[in-house]
Amino acid sequence: MQRLQSRTAEKVKALCRLRDSAKERAETGGFLAEGLRLCRDIAQYLPARELYATEKMLSEHPELTNLAAQTFEISDAVAEKLSDTKTTQGVFALFERPAPLETLRSGGRYLALEHVQDPANLGALLRSASAFGFEGVLLCSHCADWFSPKVLRAGMGAVAKLRYACYDDVNELAKALRAANIALYAAALERAVSLEQAPALTDAGLAVLIGNEGNGLTDEAVALADVTVRIPMMPNVESLNAAVAGSILLWHFRSLEEAAQ
Amino acid sequence: MQRLQSRTAEKVKALCRLRDSAKERAETGGFLAEGLRLCRDIAQYLPARELYATEKMLSEHPELTNLAAQTFEISDAVAEKLSDTKTTQGVFALFERPAPLETLRSGGRYLALEHVQDPANLGALLRSASAFGFEGVLLCSHCADWFSPKVLRAGMGAVAKLRYACYDDVNELAKALRAANIALYAAALERAVSLEQAPALTDAGLAVLIGNEGNGLTDEAVALADVTVRIPMMPNVESLNAAVAGSILLWHFRSLEEAAQ
Repeated sequence: MQRLQSRTAEKVKALCRLRDSAKERAETGGFLAEGLRLCRDIAQYLPARELYATEKMLSEHPELTNLAAQTFEISDAVAEKLSDTKTTQGVFALFERPAPLETLRSGGRYLALEHVQDPANLGALLRSASAFGFEGVLLCSHCADWFSPKVLRAGMGAVAKLRYACYDDVNELAKALRAANIALYAAALERAVSLEQAPALTDAGLAVLIGNEGNGLTDEAVALADVTVRIPMMPNVESLNAAVAGSILLWHFRSLEEAAQ
Repeated sequence: MQRLQSRTAEKVKALCRLRDSAKERAETGGFLAEGLRLCRDIAQYLPARELYATEKMLSEHPELTNLAAQTFEISDAVAEKLSDTKTTQGVFALFERPAPLETLRSGGRYLALEHVQDPANLGALLRSASAFGFEGVLLCSHCADWFSPKVLRAGMGAVAKLRYACYDDVNELAKALRAANIALYAAALERAVSLEQAPALTDAGLAVLIGNEGNGLTDEAVALADVTVRIPMMPNVESLNAAVAGSILLWHFRSLEEAAQ
């Protein structure tokens, strides 16, 4: 087993760049995950190139050496350096980032996000999408980076289960959906049908589109939608948390058919 | 108008204690809110004792002087000292904390929380409870403090609209619910009916009980519930974000009848 003991080693610096920079992740095709459970969860779905763990963790969990092609024993100092959390468990893995979807599946169910920026919201939405039978997430207009440590943590491994695609803007997204004959449902407050009246299951594919935390969807996005729906609320209430609103739509349009088989 | 210019003034120190300490808030019966919109929202429901705003804010929004019994013009330095955020707007208000509920209303709808600790989750749940026609929130076993700056911010003023009560533990909560003949619905993963099979509207009152972010409800809480419900999910998914799971239950058991009147 190789050792990685110095905080200033080139390899440690490279891993920190991978942790901190979306650009670095895109260029190298990898991402860094932290934590025993998260690394194990992701490894069920994506190939791990390298595992890094402290001596203590490796002696408590010897099976960790099977998780990746290569294992490095790291010092506590290196673990602290690599960590994005207050107290680190001392386990990290470098995963291969899956390729984005090139085309959407006709009949598929997708969560689409326009300019969702809070990593905790994005992570919570990913968990909901994965729980309610959506197969992929379509990001447009500068959402929080999918493979950042905070999204990985808030998403609890859902990132690894879901397919994804990125679009420059909502026009590109709408074009991709039309090409696959997938209906676009947008959450909006005005000129929208109540979610209670929206048919829950459709045979055709659908994409549920959620907007920015503070500002909601752009007018452009609402105009491109096939159906706009609103979540009925008490009259003196203006809005819900973005992850909550999105998750209620995902719950309404869920498809757990595979679960019953 | 009085002025408050020095960061080290006794009054400024007292306001910082109010911002930071749940004990101080309980003892003085007040709480401090920050931000133009939040202060205005809360003032629709609760009496404001004092308003603090910078010269700039007071000249842009002269109607702010009507918001509280007394207004103080504060310096930028005092605004920064009082602020809990990265960049402050320079508006704060000291509100009177409403008294907790002494008894529950038979036929009432409540959100009950056991040991929910993340202020963002608590705030998101409050917004959902307020949006879906729940009249109060019942906190037990050391939840995040209801009147803390982070909960106020995440809750977007919902704190001011909802009545609340605190209980030492889930036993005390169950006693109060039984006394008012209110059914306790608990979210649980095992030995639970699917939410799809749970009747949505009941004439009797109900309380929806949500547990801690990491550990869910205690066994004691599950044992005390009249009905345990689970949100059906795909088989390879273990859990949802706590605020999302709770909000889906609140949505299912919503009562927007007043909205239609």
